[in-house]
Amino acid sequence: MSEMLQKIDNSIIKKNESFAAKAETLKPTLLQREQRPERIVRVVPDEQVIHGWRVEQEEAAVAEHLPARVLGKGDQVIVDFGDHQVGSLSIKIKPVGSPPDAPLYLKLTFGEMPVEMAVPFFEYDGWLSRSWLQEEYVHVDVLPGVLKLDRRYSFRYLKLEVVDTSPKYKVSFEDICCTTVTSGDRNRVRELHHSDPELQAIDRVSIKTLEDCMQEVFEDGPKRDRRLWLGDLRLQAIANYDTFQNNELVKRCLYLFAAFPNDKGQVAANLFIKPEVIPDDTFLFDYSLLFVSTLHDYYLVTKDQETLEELWPTALRQIEIGLEQLDERLIVQDSEIWYSFIDWHPELNKQAPSQAVLIYAMKQALHLAELLQDDSRDVLRRQIDEVQAAAIQHLWSEVEQYFVSGKGRQVSWATQVWMVLAGVLDKEKSRELLLRLLAEQPGIPLMTPYMMHHLIEALIQVGERDRAILEMKQYWGGMVRDGADTFWELYDLHNKKFSPYGSYLINSYCHAWSCTPTYFIRKYKL
Amino acid sequence: MSEMLQKIDNSIIKKNESFAAKAETLKPTLLQREQRPERIVRVVPDEQVIHGWRVEQEEAAVAEHLPARVLGKGDQVIVDFGDHQVGSLSIKIKPVGSPPDAPLYLKLTFGEMPVEMAVPFFEYDGWLSRSWLQEEYVHVDVLPGVLKLDRRYSFRYLKLEVVDTSPKYKVSFEDICCTTVTSGDRNRVRELHHSDPELQAIDRVSIKTLEDCMQEVFEDGPKRDRRLWLGDLRLQAIANYDTFQNNELVKRCLYLFAAFPNDKGQVAANLFIKPEVIPDDTFLFDYSLLFVSTLHDYYLVTKDQETLEELWPTALRQIEIGLEQLDERLIVQDSEIWYSFIDWHPELNKQAPSQAVLIYAMKQALHLAELLQDDSRDVLRRQIDEVQAAAIQHLWSEVEQYFVSGKGRQVSWATQVWMVLAGVLDKEKSRELLLRLLAEQPGIPLMTPYMMHHLIEALIQVGERDRAILEMKQYWGGMVRDGADTFWELYDLHNKKFSPYGSYLINSYCHAWSCTPTYFIRKYKL
Repeated sequence: MSEMLQKIDNSIIKKNESFAAKAETLKPTLLQREQRPERIVRVVPDEQVIHGWRVEQEEAAVAEHLPARVLGKGDQVIVDFGDHQVGSLSIKIKPVGSPPDAPLYLKLTFGEMPVEMAVPFFEYDGWLSRSWLQEEYVHVDVLPGVLKLDRRYSFRYLKLEVVDTSPKYKVSFEDICCTTVTSGDRNRVRELHHSDPELQAIDRVSIKTLEDCMQEVFEDGPKRDRRLWLGDLRLQAIANYDTFQNNELVKRCLYLFAAFPNDKGQVAANLFIKPEVIPDDTFLFDYSLLFVSTLHDYYLVTKDQETLEELWPTALRQIEIGLEQLDERLIVQDSEIWYSFIDWHPELNKQAPSQAVLIYAMKQALHLAELLQDDSRDVLRRQIDEVQAAAIQHLWSEVEQYFVSGKGRQVSWATQVWMVLAGVLDKEKSRELLLRLLAEQPGIPLMTPYMMHHLIEALIQVGERDRAILEMKQYWGGMVRDGADTFWELYDLHNKKFSPYGSYLINSYCHAWSCTPTYFIRKYKL
Repeated sequence: MSEMLQKIDNSIIKKNESFAAKAETLKPTLLQREQRPERIVRVVPDEQVIHGWRVEQEEAAVAEHLPARVLGKGDQVIVDFGDHQVGSLSIKIKPVGSPPDAPLYLKLTFGEMPVEMAVPFFEYDGWLSRSWLQEEYVHVDVLPGVLKLDRRYSFRYLKLEVVDTSPKYKVSFEDICCTTVTSGDRNRVRELHHSDPELQAIDRVSIKTLEDCMQEVFEDGPKRDRRLWLGDLRLQAIANYDTFQNNELVKRCLYLFAAFPNDKGQVAANLFIKPEVIPDDTFLFDYSLLFVSTLHDYYLVTKDQETLEELWPTALRQIEIGLEQLDERLIVQDSEIWYSFIDWHPELNKQAPSQAVLIYAMKQALHLAELLQDDSRDVLRRQIDEVQAAAIQHLWSEVEQYFVSGKGRQVSWATQVWMVLAGVLDKEKSRELLLRLLAEQPGIPLMTPYMMHHLIEALIQVGERDRAILEMKQYWGGMVRDGADTFWELYDLHNKKFSPYGSYLINSYCHAWSCTPTYFIRKYKL
């Protein structure tokens, strides 16, 4: 540990002790709730449903029917908690037959989706670690007894498989209990009574998604990566302001990022929280700039002047670092390496959308600088004009009537959406651009709820509220129709088995960056 | 739990609360010791060694070489603790590379023998529960960290396999520590300086076997079944008297058996100790009778009059129950069910050896009755004469010059050995019988160290000390030559892969009933 930290310390990390200490004092108390399964189910193949697996009820009234099931070697049972859960698990196990003359060998499989109950994890061959797949093999030496699993799981379904007992006894499961954890207090969420049941449902699933991602920090996903990513944080924060209102948690996360910049002052793309805070060695052009945006949004809601003043230098530094990456034309220097996130599409060129994110962040920085009456504001104003002019001069294609990106002059949705959000064109031209984009469907499409969020935001910004609702109902409503209890990390209407990781088994099905419909519905009163 | 216990309570168990309470007060404090691996090894196929697998050293100085090994997905390392260990495990794990961005998924395999490091446990298809095979799959969410496995393992070798980390980091193992447990205090064992190095080695391995089986009770084997069996207890007790001298532990075990008889008063063949004492629903003719023998041996060593007086009624009741199983000829009624243990040979008929065990136990009961001046002694004397006469009349074959057993008039070694131990023939005839048995090698052979113990005891009893040593060197010395750190549950010189369970993977390689050579060497000054 110490060796590793030192290496990071010595080479790149400049820890701000005061910020780190402040973040520590803001650590939330987790709220706990006991949840029990609602029914016993099985999964059956069905090509009509997502991933090809459908859940069928075997028994309701788990408390009555589960203890009556006696399981021996090779037997299994699947319980359905009825909704997405994040927490630890305990199972009360009773032996049936002779006294247990050998340990119980039990396999547990947790799934957010029915497919995780059906497809054996050993078939997984994606490139992310299989350690994310939620399975446990456990020996229970003393029966009857309560098996306590202290890890935190993210799931709705739980499969219990008896690997072995002995020829002389079997087992039954008398009680299964998940102790859920969250730092989002449901009591603070205003009830919504929407006239449109579809929006009502989308709002509910959004809030559940956000709740389950709110832990000691805003995590990106409780199944995976369970980590504080800046891009997710920004969206969680805005969804939080009109729901759980845990603004202290946003503040904590801002201080955490500000506490662990590299030696240039750039904030990391994400932070590991345990055993102590460690910034990842991944730095992303867009994510670092979105620190500015997150601080900007936080201040507008909270008017927390002290935090703004303390974190402003960090925010401004992200703009300066972004500007350092511009070429002599004042255009973001493109690169083959993974320097900017933007979206998961494997062919997406990042240059133009990164340019747009820079302009977007600079305008928010200017707003903050003006509020602070900071000396930087005049320079910022000039720089914005220059960088924006460069974008129009070098990235706008008169022929194609789209912004283009990279050597290949790629047209992508992400570029148009971010240019609109950055306000590079006036409102009417932005509106025309977006509507043409939707009509013509050119180039590289959007791949994630993260980028879909930005499309919706852009549509609202140009006054296309109805179109925004339509797109939201099609996309997030599509997830609800496909059975989402919480919104998914990945959802492609045209390829529902899409995963950038080589297997949809490893996708996160409760993912922070997908939680923003509640923000749109509540903030813009859609 | 309660339901199950009640069922047993209501139907057959008559718990003696006072005896149970006394056993509880005698619960030993376990002695702990920290043990670390001695070397890094690999296992290589070698048809010349037992099970076909040999251990080769890769590195000595584990403390230096192990932390330097960096393991990623699919990598493994095997460490050798240098001797058999019984205890829990902790491993200090360090990440190497980027901060760990996914849990570590680790597989641990514990082995008493090299074969357990080589043959995948999923190939196991024996009839005992695979839950006995010592493997764990563990997710480690926080690194660096110390993985603590609280189960108790029985092993010399430990294989660590990295199922997965992530593409961004690997791990190394900085420290591995086993905290061993035993209720046998080494400081109480007198050092032996034997002129014969082979007997010296056999004595050492015997004592290590006994030490590792001495836990909260005398267990049959720390890997399997981890349970108090009466047949094992009797042999452990006599090995204990001349070594660890934990006579309180013998007393505790006697009280435990006496505390949980069935409604007839018969003591169970074995007891489960956790979560509370439960007698197994297995009752064996010979094992119940050996309660008498264990009490007899205990009293002769300790002269503990109070225990003798308290437990005498239980002992006498075992004789009465034994006698109830006799037919009108006063011969044990044979049966197809597993009514008596004697030995593991699948074709062994139990009638005649059970008759001999009955006579053996009756004679020890008479000895105790005489010491107690108990009213039963005259009846016992008469019964012994009758049952012994019946044995000679109905079970001795003049034609074969052996005792025979069952309808098929089977000749087995177990029968002859037990008849000698029971003193059914006079000493000279007994000697002739044993020597003829060894010369002619007829019928069903002995299969286990348990029955080998009785052969050695019988040889010594008839004055054949040299032959006893020869047999002991051949059998237990064979195990030592085959690499035993502790003596094995099963050992067949002619079939070293023998297992009554369908796979030698599940055999116990540290087994109480094999620990008695130290008793012979020390008690009889061999």
